Amino acid sequence: MGRVTVRERVLRIREGVEAERVDTLVVEEPLEIRLDGSPLSITMRTPGSDFDLAAGFLVSEGVVSEGSQVTAIRYCAGATEDGSNTYNVLDVSLAPGVPLPDTSLERNFYTSSSCGLCGKASLDAVRTKARWPVADDGLRIDVPTLTGLPDRLREAQRVFDRTGGLHAAGLFTAAGELLALREDVGRHNAVDKLVGWALRSGRLPLRETVLMVSGRASFELVQKAWMAGIPMMAAVSAPSSLAVELATEAGMTLVGFLRGSSMNVYSGRNRVLLERALTAPSAAPGVPRPPHR
Amino acid sequence: MGRVTVRERVLRIREGVEAERVDTLVVEEPLEIRLDGSPLSITMRTPGSDFDLAAGFLVSEGVVSEGSQVTAIRYCAGATEDGSNTYNVLDVSLAPGVPLPDTSLERNFYTSSSCGLCGKASLDAVRTKARWPVADDGLRIDVPTLTGLPDRLREAQRVFDRTGGLHAAGLFTAAGELLALREDVGRHNAVDKLVGWALRSGRLPLRETVLMVSGRASFELVQKAWMAGIPMMAAVSAPSSLAVELATEAGMTLVGFLRGSSMNVYSGRNRVLLERALTAPSAAPGVPRPPHR
Repeated sequence: MGRVTVRERVLRIREGVEAERVDTLVVEEPLEIRLDGSPLSITMRTPGSDFDLAAGFLVSEGVVSEGSQVTAIRYCAGATEDGSNTYNVLDVSLAPGVPLPDTSLERNFYTSSSCGLCGKASLDAVRTKARWPVADDGLRIDVPTLTGLPDRLREAQRVFDRTGGLHAAGLFTAAGELLALREDVGRHNAVDKLVGWALRSGRLPLRETVLMVSGRASFELVQKAWMAGIPMMAAVSAPSSLAVELATEAGMTLVGFLRGSSMNVYSGRNRVLLERALTAPSAAPGVPRPPHR
Repeated sequence: MGRVTVRERVLRIREGVEAERVDTLVVEEPLEIRLDGSPLSITMRTPGSDFDLAAGFLVSEGVVSEGSQVTAIRYCAGATEDGSNTYNVLDVSLAPGVPLPDTSLERNFYTSSSCGLCGKASLDAVRTKARWPVADDGLRIDVPTLTGLPDRLREAQRVFDRTGGLHAAGLFTAAGELLALREDVGRHNAVDKLVGWALRSGRLPLRETVLMVSGRASFELVQKAWMAGIPMMAAVSAPSSLAVELATEAGMTLVGFLRGSSMNVYSGRNRVLLERALTAPSAAPGVPRPPHR
């Protein structure tokens, strides 16, 4: 995992005083994913969990939904002129009968909508691809467990403290137990790595789990959660309008601004177990206050 | 600009106490960019400055470099079945003689490198496309001006305070004057909008300017800055390894962790004017300290 970070000399300026120091940088490298030999996508990512990333990307795109549909993932040794392996090109072999995706630009947007291109078309496109319902998922989680997730995620991010440059995605149980953590310079990649881990370990759909992400909640992150069958997503920062619409459409619980002891619940609030505020009953008018309480 | 934000009822939980409130969400909608009628890309973006976004995207991709190469940008009214306009599909008309881009997956990576796919191939691909040198740019900026940029950016972000969900990109002079600000739910879009504004107002290349971004500094953001001829980029958070390599390759100044009174300078430090620390000369050994100071 030496490629996750590199060390670099930088000029540090603080309070007007300069100093040379060595800083740790998170590594960003391109990864090409091939499907049975044909190029499918290139993404900039942090090396590590590359097989998970490729597998999770295919789940998010609706290409596969169980581990047996992927027969092999391997780095392409012959990608360079001299035949060496850069570990930046992966080939995924699909099982016989698994259809190759139609990657044309409009196909994912225009098949099921009459609006041309709008938010609703985006929702329709995801609903068409989603294989597992999450609306009926029985997950319930209490507020103290939820508010504890950001700290648990951060504690588990060993790399984070060294670079400040990595997004994290963590998968938790209703009891707040961390099932898996993945990091990447790209937020989408971190979630794909997590979902790919689940596919490869036979855990899809990820029922009764919470996906916690370190940044904002975008449409695409909610889409990835739905494609993996995850009934709840929590984010440290704000969700977008379309993220909320998609979560509502899916029957997924979406929590944002999960910081300290507070949060906003944007959809699916039935999964959040509220504590009743333990306030003392107020004294009736005219009745003397008790001498002690 | 009413579509930049929407209002939504949420459940707010703070200190275990719940309350209904209305929250402001940043809007995320898909935008399709067509080039002379052919689909080129679909991106999730915050509506607003859409023409700038399309123009800047074409600069980043190396398709155009001056305003006269774009003859028209218009929303496609006929994109829906009933002929209405969703304002989510744009068509860009190029001037005669401007070649259409080769959008095949590998072309941008494999033309100039023997490594197959690696960080160096990514650097080579950008260098091949970059039209303006930035290494010789005469920009110089002092430390107090630099440390003031994040506050200036935030002050200018009227929307930010309402949603907490928007990335910002600001273009500044060496004196710290804000030339333009663009926001988006996607960091890359915010920079594309800024660069597109510059193209459409005849300001490319953006010599002697500083690009300030609200988040991290990725390879792609440095690439966009270089493609627009910007000699310096400053980010509130961490850069990636490949962002530093590309900035070094370009002769661009890259500043990260620009917060409070401190920053890290990763490349091009000659453009940062250092103050000498104004410390009183220390008393020589054996010499009595002065009675007052």
